[in-house]
Amino acid sequence: MKFKKAVRDPIHGFIKLTEEEVRLIDGEPLIQRLRYVKQLGFVYLVYPTATHTRFDHSLGVLHVATLLGTRIMQQLGNVDEDLLRHIRVAALLHDIGHLPFSHSFEILTKHLLHMAVARGCVEVDMAQFDAARKPHEVTTQLLVNKLGPRLSELGYDPSLVAELLFGRDGRYRLFSNILTGVFDADRLDYIMRDMYFTGAAVGTSFTHIDLERIVENLEVVGENFQFNEKARVNLEGYLITRYNLYRHVYLHHKTVLFTEVARNILAEDIEKCGEGSGDPQICQYLCDLARFATGNVDEVNIWKATDDYFVSVFIRDAKFRDLLSRKPPDYVTLWKREKDFLEVFKDPVRINDLVDKIGPIHWALLNRLKKKFVERLNIELSEVVNCRLSPDDVILSYVSFDPYAEDLFITTAMGPLSISDISPLVKAVDEAWKGAPHFFLYIRKGALEKCGEKAVKSLEFVLEPLMDLAVRRISN
Amino acid sequence: MKFKKAVRDPIHGFIKLTEEEVRLIDGEPLIQRLRYVKQLGFVYLVYPTATHTRFDHSLGVLHVATLLGTRIMQQLGNVDEDLLRHIRVAALLHDIGHLPFSHSFEILTKHLLHMAVARGCVEVDMAQFDAARKPHEVTTQLLVNKLGPRLSELGYDPSLVAELLFGRDGRYRLFSNILTGVFDADRLDYIMRDMYFTGAAVGTSFTHIDLERIVENLEVVGENFQFNEKARVNLEGYLITRYNLYRHVYLHHKTVLFTEVARNILAEDIEKCGEGSGDPQICQYLCDLARFATGNVDEVNIWKATDDYFVSVFIRDAKFRDLLSRKPPDYVTLWKREKDFLEVFKDPVRINDLVDKIGPIHWALLNRLKKKFVERLNIELSEVVNCRLSPDDVILSYVSFDPYAEDLFITTAMGPLSISDISPLVKAVDEAWKGAPHFFLYIRKGALEKCGEKAVKSLEFVLEPLMDLAVRRISN
Amino acid sequence: MKFKKAVRDPIHGFIKLTEEEVRLIDGEPLIQRLRYVKQLGFVYLVYPTATHTRFDHSLGVLHVATLLGTRIMQQLGNVDEDLLRHIRVAALLHDIGHLPFSHSFEILTKHLLHMAVARGCVEVDMAQFDAARKPHEVTTQLLVNKLGPRLSELGYDPSLVAELLFGRDGRYRLFSNILTGVFDADRLDYIMRDMYFTGAAVGTSFTHIDLERIVENLEVVGENFQFNEKARVNLEGYLITRYNLYRHVYLHHKTVLFTEVARNILAEDIEKCGEGSGDPQICQYLCDLARFATGNVDEVNIWKATDDYFVSVFIRDAKFRDLLSRKPPDYVTLWKREKDFLEVFKDPVRINDLVDKIGPIHWALLNRLKKKFVERLNIELSEVVNCRLSPDDVILSYVSFDPYAEDLFITTAMGPLSISDISPLVKAVDEAWKGAPHFFLYIRKGALEKCGEKAVKSLEFVLEPLMDLAVRRISN
Amino acid sequence: MKFKKAVRDPIHGFIKLTEEEVRLIDGEPLIQRLRYVKQLGFVYLVYPTATHTRFDHSLGVLHVATLLGTRIMQQLGNVDEDLLRHIRVAALLHDIGHLPFSHSFEILTKHLLHMAVARGCVEVDMAQFDAARKPHEVTTQLLVNKLGPRLSELGYDPSLVAELLFGRDGRYRLFSNILTGVFDADRLDYIMRDMYFTGAAVGTSFTHIDLERIVENLEVVGENFQFNEKARVNLEGYLITRYNLYRHVYLHHKTVLFTEVARNILAEDIEKCGEGSGDPQICQYLCDLARFATGNVDEVNIWKATDDYFVSVFIRDAKFRDLLSRKPPDYVTLWKREKDFLEVFKDPVRINDLVDKIGPIHWALLNRLKKKFVERLNIELSEVVNCRLSPDDVILSYVSFDPYAEDLFITTAMGPLSISDISPLVKAVDEAWKGAPHFFLYIRKGALEKCGEKAVKSLEFVLEPLMDLAVRRISN
Repeated sequence: MKFKKAVRDPIHGFIKLTEEEVRLIDGEPLIQRLRYVKQLGFVYLVYPTATHTRFDHSLGVLHVATLLGTRIMQQLGNVDEDLLRHIRVAALLHDIGHLPFSHSFEILTKHLLHMAVARGCVEVDMAQFDAARKPHEVTTQLLVNKLGPRLSELGYDPSLVAELLFGRDGRYRLFSNILTGVFDADRLDYIMRDMYFTGAAVGTSFTHIDLERIVENLEVVGENFQFNEKARVNLEGYLITRYNLYRHVYLHHKTVLFTEVARNILAEDIEKCGEGSGDPQICQYLCDLARFATGNVDEVNIWKATDDYFVSVFIRDAKFRDLLSRKPPDYVTLWKREKDFLEVFKDPVRINDLVDKIGPIHWALLNRLKKKFVERLNIELSEVVNCRLSPDDVILSYVSFDPYAEDLFITTAMGPLSISDISPLVKAVDEAWKGAPHFFLYIRKGALEKCGEKAVKSLEFVLEPLMDLAVRRISN
Repeated sequence: MKFKKAVRDPIHGFIKLTEEEVRLIDGEPLIQRLRYVKQLGFVYLVYPTATHTRFDHSLGVLHVATLLGTRIMQQLGNVDEDLLRHIRVAALLHDIGHLPFSHSFEILTKHLLHMAVARGCVEVDMAQFDAARKPHEVTTQLLVNKLGPRLSELGYDPSLVAELLFGRDGRYRLFSNILTGVFDADRLDYIMRDMYFTGAAVGTSFTHIDLERIVENLEVVGENFQFNEKARVNLEGYLITRYNLYRHVYLHHKTVLFTEVARNILAEDIEKCGEGSGDPQICQYLCDLARFATGNVDEVNIWKATDDYFVSVFIRDAKFRDLLSRKPPDYVTLWKREKDFLEVFKDPVRINDLVDKIGPIHWALLNRLKKKFVERLNIELSEVVNCRLSPDDVILSYVSFDPYAEDLFITTAMGPLSISDISPLVKAVDEAWKGAPHFFLYIRKGALEKCGEKAVKSLEFVLEPLMDLAVRRISN
Repeated sequence: MKFKKAVRDPIHGFIKLTEEEVRLIDGEPLIQRLRYVKQLGFVYLVYPTATHTRFDHSLGVLHVATLLGTRIMQQLGNVDEDLLRHIRVAALLHDIGHLPFSHSFEILTKHLLHMAVARGCVEVDMAQFDAARKPHEVTTQLLVNKLGPRLSELGYDPSLVAELLFGRDGRYRLFSNILTGVFDADRLDYIMRDMYFTGAAVGTSFTHIDLERIVENLEVVGENFQFNEKARVNLEGYLITRYNLYRHVYLHHKTVLFTEVARNILAEDIEKCGEGSGDPQICQYLCDLARFATGNVDEVNIWKATDDYFVSVFIRDAKFRDLLSRKPPDYVTLWKREKDFLEVFKDPVRINDLVDKIGPIHWALLNRLKKKFVERLNIELSEVVNCRLSPDDVILSYVSFDPYAEDLFITTAMGPLSISDISPLVKAVDEAWKGAPHFFLYIRKGALEKCGEKAVKSLEFVLEPLMDLAVRRISN
Repeated sequence: MKFKKAVRDPIHGFIKLTEEEVRLIDGEPLIQRLRYVKQLGFVYLVYPTATHTRFDHSLGVLHVATLLGTRIMQQLGNVDEDLLRHIRVAALLHDIGHLPFSHSFEILTKHLLHMAVARGCVEVDMAQFDAARKPHEVTTQLLVNKLGPRLSELGYDPSLVAELLFGRDGRYRLFSNILTGVFDADRLDYIMRDMYFTGAAVGTSFTHIDLERIVENLEVVGENFQFNEKARVNLEGYLITRYNLYRHVYLHHKTVLFTEVARNILAEDIEKCGEGSGDPQICQYLCDLARFATGNVDEVNIWKATDDYFVSVFIRDAKFRDLLSRKPPDYVTLWKREKDFLEVFKDPVRINDLVDKIGPIHWALLNRLKKKFVERLNIELSEVVNCRLSPDDVILSYVSFDPYAEDLFITTAMGPLSISDISPLVKAVDEAWKGAPHFFLYIRKGALEKCGEKAVKSLEFVLEPLMDLAVRRISN
C-alpha cells in the first residue's frame, strides 16, 4: 500500500493514508462533518478535555482495522491488498451516521422521526428504524449509499464496502467482525482514545505495546478468531481499562445526569413541535435533523447535523443555556458510586440483570418505566403530607452495555476457552461490573424538600422491590 | 487553601478548586463559554485532535500560577493566601475576552468594530482598541469588569483581580508577571497542553518534572525573578519545545493557509456588511460579535461568541463550507519549511527581522503590504503574456511572535545572565528560529497556471528584494 | 528543609537531599553497598532490565516517606521538621541489612548462621534470629546500631531512628507505619519502581498522579490513618498493579525456579561446609556472609555482602555458572499460570490458604514438607516400574505474601470501611489472588522420563490430596 | 520469521526471538556474560538507576537492526529472510568483546596486554590491537570466531556473521552500516535505553513513534541510505537527544571524574604488576582479563570478565573501595558545565577541535599530554612558594566523540543533502556541541590549597595557551 500522507495522532503516532483516501477525505462533507461531532457527547462537562471527535476516532479505527485485517489475512495465507483497501474505507465510514453529540440523543431518534413524519418534513419507511437496535447505523447505511458514486470514482466497489459494514454473516464475516463485532477496531481505538483525552487513566493502562501484542497473537480458526495465551495479559488490560472507563467516564453519575437533562430538553421540544406548540426555529431544525437521519442531505443541510449547529439553535432554550454553562442541575443523585448503590440495593447483580434485560431502551419504554415507578413511589409516600412526586421530578437513566468478556476466546490445548473461564481477573472484573450501578436515579431537589428528609430515607428501603416491580411490569 | 473539587486534567493530573471557585465557575456563562472556543483555532484542520479549549487551558493556568505564585511568596518570606486566591481567579479569567477561534480572527477585531460602529450596532470608544496590541485583552478587561459584582459576592476584591491582570507595573508586578509576562503560567500551560493535544511531541519533551524543577528554582531578586542554574536544562527544554511547537504547529504552512482563508472570508463579509451588500444574517451576527467584543453581553448573546455559533452562521457562505470540509485550498505555497524558505531567501534572518519589526499587524496594513507587493510582482511579470496577479490571487501571512529567550535570567556568580548568553543550545534555538520562516506566501493556482511555470520560477529570484521594498514602503 | 543536591530518578523525578544526608550517604559503605544488591534478586534472568538496586529504592522510600510523613504531620496540625529528618534517615536505612540478591536467600539465613556458629566463624545469640519473621530486619537493626555514632555526629538521634524503624507500637506508631506497615512508603516505591524497570506494566498503571492523590487524601484518625474516598480509584490502581507484579514478575514460574535453583546451590554448600566437605573458599565466604548478617562488618568485609562478590565466589560451582548463563534448568514445571493450576487443583483457594498458613517458611520446614510429599508421591507411583522420585528430583517453592487489602480503610459516613468491602474491583482482585498459584512444583526431567508420561498424568489427580496431607502433617 | 519467545523490554515492548536464537542465547556464557557488564560503566555513581547492561542493549540492537534491515531489503525489492537471520545474530554479538565496565577501561586495554605479554600470561600478536581504534572490537572478533562451530550447529554461516560485523566495505555494506555505521541500530537503541534508565530525559524525547517514522522513511540510493524529509523532525529529535545525553550523562563532570579515578587505579596496578610489585591476586586477575581480551576463554575464566568479578578483586585496593562507596574524590573540577568552560576558554571551539584531532586516545599519549601540561603549569606557578604540582595531582580527561551529523542525508530535489545543511536546529546543536567541554581538568585539593587561591585563579588565564601548546607538542 502506497501512502501519500501521514496524519499525526497522539494515540497511534501517525495514521498513514493513500492518495485515494486523501482524495476521499479532504473536501467530503459526509466525512469531515465528524470533526464537529464530539466522540463522547456531554462528557466534556465532567472531563473538560474530552473534546475529541468522531473524526479522529474514525481515522484511528482505519488504522487499527488495518492491523487486524492484515493479521487475519496473513493467518489465512493471503494478503489481499484490495480487500484491505475496502476494509480501511469501511472503517473510515463506520460512524458517519452519528447525530450531534454521538450517542447522547440516539435514544430519541425514532421519536424525532415519528414527529417529523407526522409533520411532513420527511418521508421515510420507519420499519428499518423500528427494527434497528442502533438507529445511527441505519443512517450510516443510508449515507454510505449516497457515497456510492464517489467511491466508484475513486476505484472502490461500494457494494463491498457495504457488505463489510453491514453484512455481518456473509462471505467477509471475519473482516466484518473486526469492524463491528465483539472485539473490534472500533472498541480498541475508543478505549485508548477516550482514556487519553479524558485523562482518566488510573490503575489502568493499555498502550501501543498491548495493541501490537494482541494483534500478533490473533489466530484464525475456521470462521472465527481467537487469541494465543501470550496475549492474555494484554486482553486483561483491555478489559480492565474498559471497565474503568465505564465506571469513571461513561457512567459517571454527573455525565449521566447532564446527558439526561439534555435528552429531556430535546424530548420536550420534539413533543411540543409534534403538538404544534414549539419554537418555530427549533421545530424547523428538528426537521433538518430528521432529514439527515434519513439520509436526505445536501451541501448545506449536512452542516446542521453537527454539535455546533445544534448548540446554536438550542441556545434559544433557557434550559439548554443552563446546561451549556454547567449550572448545577436541580437534582439529587440517589447513589453516586458502587458504595452508595450497594447501600440501596441488597442484590445489585439481580437488579442490574433485570434492567439489562430490557435491552437497548426506547424513550417511550423508559418513560413508561419511570411512570410506573413514580406511581409506586407515591403510594409509599402517601402518608407524608404535601409529598407527591410527578414523573418530571424524577430522572431515571440506564446505560445499555455489554462489557462481558465471554466472547473473547483463548486458544488452549482443550480448544478455545472464554477468557472469563481462565482468567480470575477477567472473571472478577465481570463480577465487579455486574454489581456496579448500570442505572441512576435522580430526584428534583424541590420535590425532595417538600417531602422531608425522612421520606427520602424511607425511599431507600423500597427502591429495590419497586424497581423490580416496575421493570417486570413493562417487560410484559 | 481548602479544596472542594478536583477536575481531572491529562496535563496536570488533578486541578483542585475551592468552594468559591466552584461556585464562580459552574453556571457562569462568561467562563463556561470558553469550553466552546478552541485553544488553537483552525489547527484542528491539520492536527485533528487539537480540539482542546480555552476552558481547560484556563484551569491549567490557574494551576500553574498557583505553583509560581506560592514559590514567589515563599521567596518573599510570606505566603499570603488571600493574594493567592486572587491570583487564581485572575488566571482563570485571563482569556475570557477571546473571540471565537481564539487568535484566528484577532487581527480583524478593529475592522469588525469600525464596521459595527458605522452601522450603529455598537457604541464604543475605539481609542482603547486602537491603542491595544492585543484587542482580546481589551475585551477581557471589559468582561472582568462585568464580573465585578459576582466576584465581590464570592468574597473577592475585583480591583485586585484587575490589577493583577492589567496593572503590570504596579505593586503586584511580580505576580502580574507570572500571569502575563515573558515567562508565565499561560505559556507554561499552553506549551504542555498544545503538545499533548496535537501529538506533536517530537524530539522534545516538557513534563511535570521539568515544571516542578523550574518552579522550585525560581528565585526572587528585587522586583524580578530569575532561575537557579539547576533548572537551566529544564528551561532549555521549555524553549526547544516552544520552538518545535511554533515550527510544526502554529506555523505549519497549512495551519497558516487555512487560517488566512478563514480570515479572508470574514474580512470580505465585514466589508460587504459595511457596504450594505452583505448577507443579512451574517451582518446581524457580526454586530453580535462586535457587541461581545465591546463587553455588551447578555445571557443569550454571550453564546454567540463561540466557535459553534460562528460555524452555524457561516455555513451560509459556500467558501466557509469548503473550509469546514477541508477542501484543499486553491493555492500554492511558495515555501513550506525552512529548506524551501532558504532556497528563496538568501538572507532569511534579515528578512524575518524586517517583517518582525512591523509589529502586531493590522489587517489594513497587511493589505497595503500585499498590494505593494503584488504591484511589484506584476512589474516583474509584465513581459509574460496573460499573466497578471490581482491582490486576491495572493495570500501573505505573518505570525507575530517573540520566542527569544533574552529575558529569561539565570543566577550566576556574576549576577543574573540571560539564558541565551550561557546556553549554547538556547542561543542555537534562537538562531534557528531567526532563520525559520516567519511569514508565508501563497498564490492562487489558476493565476500561476496562466503565467506558466517559468514565470513562477522567475519569481523566486525577486521575492527577497521585493519583500524588502514592500516592507520598507509600508514602514514609513 | 534545605536541600543541597537532587538525584535524578526516573520514578520520582528528582530526589532531593539535605547537606547532612549527602554527607551521610556519600562515602558510607553501609549505605553504598546497596548499589550492589539487586532489588529483585534473580528476576533479571526473566526480565533482563530488572537490574535496579536496593540503593535507588532506598532513596525512593526516603522520598515517599517524606510525602506521607508531611501529610500526617499536617493532619496532626504540626509539621515537625526534626522528626521528618529522622523519618527520612530511617527510610534510607530500612533495607541496609539485606543479603546479596535481596530476598532470594533470606530463607537460608538461619541455616547459614547455625552452620557458621557451629564452625566457630561467628558468635551470635541465635534467639533474635529464630524469633524474627524476616531475618534481614535483624541484620538491619544490628547495622543501624553500628551507624549510631555517625548519625550522632551528623546531628541525628540514633535512638529515634531506631524507634521509627523497629518500635512499631510506640509513640511514633503512625510514622513507623509509613515506613513498614500495611501501606507504606516501601511498597509504594517498589511497586512503581519494579514496574518501571521490568517493563511489566500491562493493563496497569500507577503514576506520580496516583501517588500524589493518595497522599493528599490520607486522613489521620486517632492512631491510624485511612483514606478519603476520593483516592479510592488510585488505591484500586495500587492494588491491581501489585497483583499484576506478583503474577507476572515475583511469581513468574521461571523467576521462582531460578531462585530455587540458586537456593539449592547455596543450601548444599552450607550443608557441605557444615560437614567439613565444602570448597574451602566457598566455606570461607559463607563465614564472611554470616559475619555480615550478624553485624560484624569491617571496611573490606562489607563489600563481600554484595551480589558481585557472591557471584565471584560461586562461579567456582558449575551449577551456579549454569544459572548465571541461564542454562535452561533440567526441570518441568507442573503448572505455569492460573489456567494450568486450576486444572490440577479443584479447590485452589483452599489449597493456597492451607499453604499460606505455614507462615514465613523455614528451609528446614520446606524440606520436611517436600520429603513427606515425595514419600506420598512414590506410593502413588509404586506400580510404575523404574519410577521412584528422590527429594532432589523435586523443587517445591512457596512465596509468602499478603496482598490482601483488608487493612486499607476508606473514610465513609459509617466510619472507616475496608476497601475490600466497598470496592468490588478490590474484592475481585483479592479473590483472583486467592485462586492464583502461591506455590510451584517442578520435577526433574530425567526422573519424569523414567516414569513415563502416563505416570506424570496420573500425578495430577493426586496432587491436591497429597499436598493437603503433607501440609497438615508438618503443621502439627 | 517464526518466533518462539518474547522478552519484555521497557524500550521496545517485546523483543521476539526465534527458536534458534533462544537456543543460542540461553546457556551461552559468551552472550550471558553481558548481563554482568553495565552498559554505562560508572555512570551509576551519578545516575543511580543506570544499571542496565550490555545484554538488554544487545537484544535491543537485534530488534532495531531487524527493523532497519527489513526496510532496506524492501527498498531493494527483496526480503531475504536468511540474511535477516544473520543480521540479527550479528547484532546480538556486536558487543561481546566488551571488558568489565564497558568503555571505562578500554583506553587501558593495550597497556594491559603489553604487561600481560611481558609477564608471559598471554601470547598475542599485538599488531591487531595496535591497529584498532577500538580494542573491544578486536576482542569481539576473536570471540565471534570462537562461537563459529556453535553458530554452524544452529544453521548459521559464521563467515556471513563476521562479514556483517567486520567487513564494512564488502558485499553487505548497507547491512554492515546499520550495525555499526554513522547511523545504526546500536546508537538508536542506546539513546533510547540510556535515556530511560538514567531518567535524564529533559527537553528531549525520542520514542517508538520516532523510531518507526525514521525506519519507514529510510531510502536506499545506490550503496547508501538516506532519509525522506518526512523523518527530518524525528532525526532532529534523535540528534538533540544524543546531544543532551552527552552533556548530562556521558560527559557529566562527575561521571568523568569517577571514571578517571577508576582508570588511575587500574593503570597503577597494571604498572605495578609489570614491575613485579603488585598485589599477586590483582596481578593474577589482570592476566585473566588479558586472556579474555585476546579471546582465550574457558568456561570458568569467562565469568571473570564481568563487573562483578572485577569488583570482587579490586576491593583489595582501598582506593577502589572509596570509589565503590562514592567517597567524594579529593579533586577540584576546574569547570563543570559550558558556562564555566566558557569562562576559561575564550575560543572553546578551537580548543575542542584541537583536542578532538588527537583521535581515540591512548593512555600513554594522554599521560604525555598531562606531563607536558603540568610542566608548563609549574613554570607558571614557579613564583608561588611551596606550590608545585606533580602529574599525579592532575587528572585530565577527554571523551572522543563524533556527534556531528554531517553524514545523515536527507533526500531533496537537488539530491541528498546533509541534515546539517538544511536543519538550522541540527546545525545549532552541532555548534553547541562544538563549544561544549570535550575534556575536563581536575586538580587535587591538597595541591591547590598549598598553592593558594590566587595561584588557582591565575591558572585560568593560562590554561588556553598551555593546552594549545601541550596538544601541539604531542601531536608531532
